[in-house]
Amino acid sequence: MGEAARDSVVDVAVVTNGVQIQNGGGRDEGSLELDIYPLSCYYFGSKDAVPFKNHTLADHLHRMKSNYAARGLRTCVEAVILVELFKHPHLLLLQVRNSTFKLPGGRLRSGESDIDGLKRKLTKNLSENEEGDGTEWEVSECLGMWWRPDFETLLFPFLPPNVKQPKECTKLFLVKLPMSRKFIVPKNQRLLAVPLCQIHENHKTYGPIISGVPQLLSKFSFNMIES
Amino acid sequence: MGEAARDSVVDVAVVTNGVQIQNGGGRDEGSLELDIYPLSCYYFGSKDAVPFKNHTLADHLHRMKSNYAARGLRTCVEAVILVELFKHPHLLLLQVRNSTFKLPGGRLRSGESDIDGLKRKLTKNLSENEEGDGTEWEVSECLGMWWRPDFETLLFPFLPPNVKQPKECTKLFLVKLPMSRKFIVPKNQRLLAVPLCQIHENHKTYGPIISGVPQLLSKFSFNMIES
Repeated sequence: MGEAARDSVVDVAVVTNGVQIQNGGGRDEGSLELDIYPLSCYYFGSKDAVPFKNHTLADHLHRMKSNYAARGLRTCVEAVILVELFKHPHLLLLQVRNSTFKLPGGRLRSGESDIDGLKRKLTKNLSENEEGDGTEWEVSECLGMWWRPDFETLLFPFLPPNVKQPKECTKLFLVKLPMSRKFIVPKNQRLLAVPLCQIHENHKTYGPIISGVPQLLSKFSFNMIES
Repeated sequence: MGEAARDSVVDVAVVTNGVQIQNGGGRDEGSLELDIYPLSCYYFGSKDAVPFKNHTLADHLHRMKSNYAARGLRTCVEAVILVELFKHPHLLLLQVRNSTFKLPGGRLRSGESDIDGLKRKLTKNLSENEEGDGTEWEVSECLGMWWRPDFETLLFPFLPPNVKQPKECTKLFLVKLPMSRKFIVPKNQRLLAVPLCQIHENHKTYGPIISGVPQLLSKFSFNMIES
């Protein structure tokens, strides 16, 4: 699988500070173990582009408003997926048009469950066969939720006081990877592996949700499996 | 109990923006429910001052260094305790000398478990009888961990790359309150109830650990019990 990953069609750009590290000891009781596997365990390929619905911020705002009027609170589900590189956990992010970073995921359909919706989105954006049933995705616990009280850019990790009708809720789920698998990414997106140390508190580059992911993961003790 | 709280000896200073709020709907699958009770359910009193070990930052640094040389990695355990006020969750913080805010908790003794150590510290700083066995404290899950790679002020919610010998690990545990209880606080400390909306991303006032607590709690759906 290591060879396959190196020969892959799609760049899995690894954003790293290039420092070789070792994991010090000392974690014990009260923390949860999370197995993560080296990036080289995975194969990365590409498939046809998936069209984007929102070409501008104004489009996005317009869609949010009309969708809210029709269906009420919009719920988004996003995946926190980790791989190991240089003995440090890296988060998988999608990059759209060489600018916006986003976690894999998207908006739920009306009546769809969080888990089903996230599996559908992951299959659409990261799997070979879009018609798959999503069984290859192990959606684990909810790590956090962010609320949009109004049609503006501010998000909060709680429902702010005096907000009666939030417009959007984004839920982050841990998605556990098996020891090997294929990621097949639409051609108009890039899949990146970004070290947690670069994401932490880096609001400017990654926005409030992604830059808070290292904290949401901090209860875990990472068990980095040798390839 | 409501009367008792209002007549209490110790000020439980409530830091609030004073806005009456209502909790909007919409949380469902994938989130965990957490019962929280109104501040008025609790009684607050005072007891003799507990002496502080570190009077200056230099003292603290010196103690950390000599303790590390003698015993290695220092582990601190801290409690995230919530009450409800104005339909918004408030975090209980201790304020020392009208300046530093801290979560209740402290350093583990050599060989002491996280849970036992946290119960001991909570009993010391928040219970009537310091000789108590700690059974009145329900220590729940670990919410996060912060690492101090060196004897300096920077903390990270992960073990940074190339850090082999971290100097300190601080673990945050959710502590669930019963429907009523007494808090008896040393006279040289104040117990505060601070709304999550004021703490979120407020690094300057509360430091990195406390200001990240709202995010660590964001996976919970708060079930606010009427008093």
